[in-house]
Amino acid sequence: MTEHTHIFNSDDIDNLEQRYRANLINCVSGFKSACLLGTTDGTTNNVAIISSVVHIGANPPLLGMIMRPHTVQRDSLENIKKSGKYTLNHVHSSWVDKAHQTSARYDKEESEFDAVGLTPWFSNNFSAPYVAQSHLKLGLTVEQHFTLCNKTEMVIGRVEELFVKGNTIADDGYIDIEALGSACISGLDSYHSTKRIAQYAYAKPNEILKQK
Amino acid sequence: MTEHTHIFNSDDIDNLEQRYRANLINCVSGFKSACLLGTTDGTTNNVAIISSVVHIGANPPLLGMIMRPHTVQRDSLENIKKSGKYTLNHVHSSWVDKAHQTSARYDKEESEFDAVGLTPWFSNNFSAPYVAQSHLKLGLTVEQHFTLCNKTEMVIGRVEELFVKGNTIADDGYIDIEALGSACISGLDSYHSTKRIAQYAYAKPNEILKQK
Repeated sequence: MTEHTHIFNSDDIDNLEQRYRANLINCVSGFKSACLLGTTDGTTNNVAIISSVVHIGANPPLLGMIMRPHTVQRDSLENIKKSGKYTLNHVHSSWVDKAHQTSARYDKEESEFDAVGLTPWFSNNFSAPYVAQSHLKLGLTVEQHFTLCNKTEMVIGRVEELFVKGNTIADDGYIDIEALGSACISGLDSYHSTKRIAQYAYAKPNEILKQK
Repeated sequence: MTEHTHIFNSDDIDNLEQRYRANLINCVSGFKSACLLGTTDGTTNNVAIISSVVHIGANPPLLGMIMRPHTVQRDSLENIKKSGKYTLNHVHSSWVDKAHQTSARYDKEESEFDAVGLTPWFSNNFSAPYVAQSHLKLGLTVEQHFTLCNKTEMVIGRVEELFVKGNTIADDGYIDIEALGSACISGLDSYHSTKRIAQYAYAKPNEILKQK
């Protein structure tokens, strides 16, 4: 039961070739959310794939994300710092190719929306661009922004707007993001759809776990 | 293209019934990693489902997670604070029920391993318990630990050990966590397996995106 094909200790990991280590470690965190980050400098609308979105809390409604300031994410981060506003848009399984193509290093003046064939959409009360094609869209205002121990940056935003397509919200507030077609990511470049195994009721000690 | 069935603004979200809001906001971050967090106080081995693991960086190899100090996660967090060590173990699609059952509020002296039918396993050089049944196991040492704006805590750990079952690591370091059977989570209580849509090569501007 505890036989392992691959074993890595700290030294093994340190000694890996850089690209191999990047692929390996990007997989070990498990499946990740596939979102497009929408920002603007007022002239060019920027959209970038992001896989580091994490739930921080529901009340107030807060999401976090990890950003790399010296990468292709630089323009998005600059726009967020200046405006304090950004959108997160679930990637749909039918256009993961367009979502991944936003990771190419386009010039700052070129909109990834145009380059990859996605459409910016603006709500009445929010300055950052949404992705029209997305079935779940969030508009966020920066609540906290700081640098982590490895010089990456964590941005925590408060959800100001939420748009959901289809009849996918249950009576208890659960959004069926599988029915909505939301994709997930493993590693740096693999996209997946999902298949529900089970949804469970609240677990209690010494009681048989019930499905919802 | 931009018709939405459900629209929530800030006030709408603030005015939702608490449980409804918790379900709703826990879904909007997208699919989440399903991991079991293993800790010990030296006597009782603790294991707890966690869905907030996030990639922080590959060099050094760092993962983050968000913890709620006043919930069922309290014992895990205490163990981490005292020992500085914890494990993260991918949840396999075939025993998501056992993984979810760890979220029940067991007494501090009762091991969730025994209660749900999972097996603690120890490597030679690491004090925290792994989940024997897991196909991907990580041993981590706390690198940074701090409180966020909503009083949740973020723990960043450095990967000291990695154990992987099966022949699931590609030549470039990518671990096929789908072939490994790793599950993912939506909302607070829904578990999913995955189906690969595509894996893409590095994206470049003005070049057709290639599959790997």
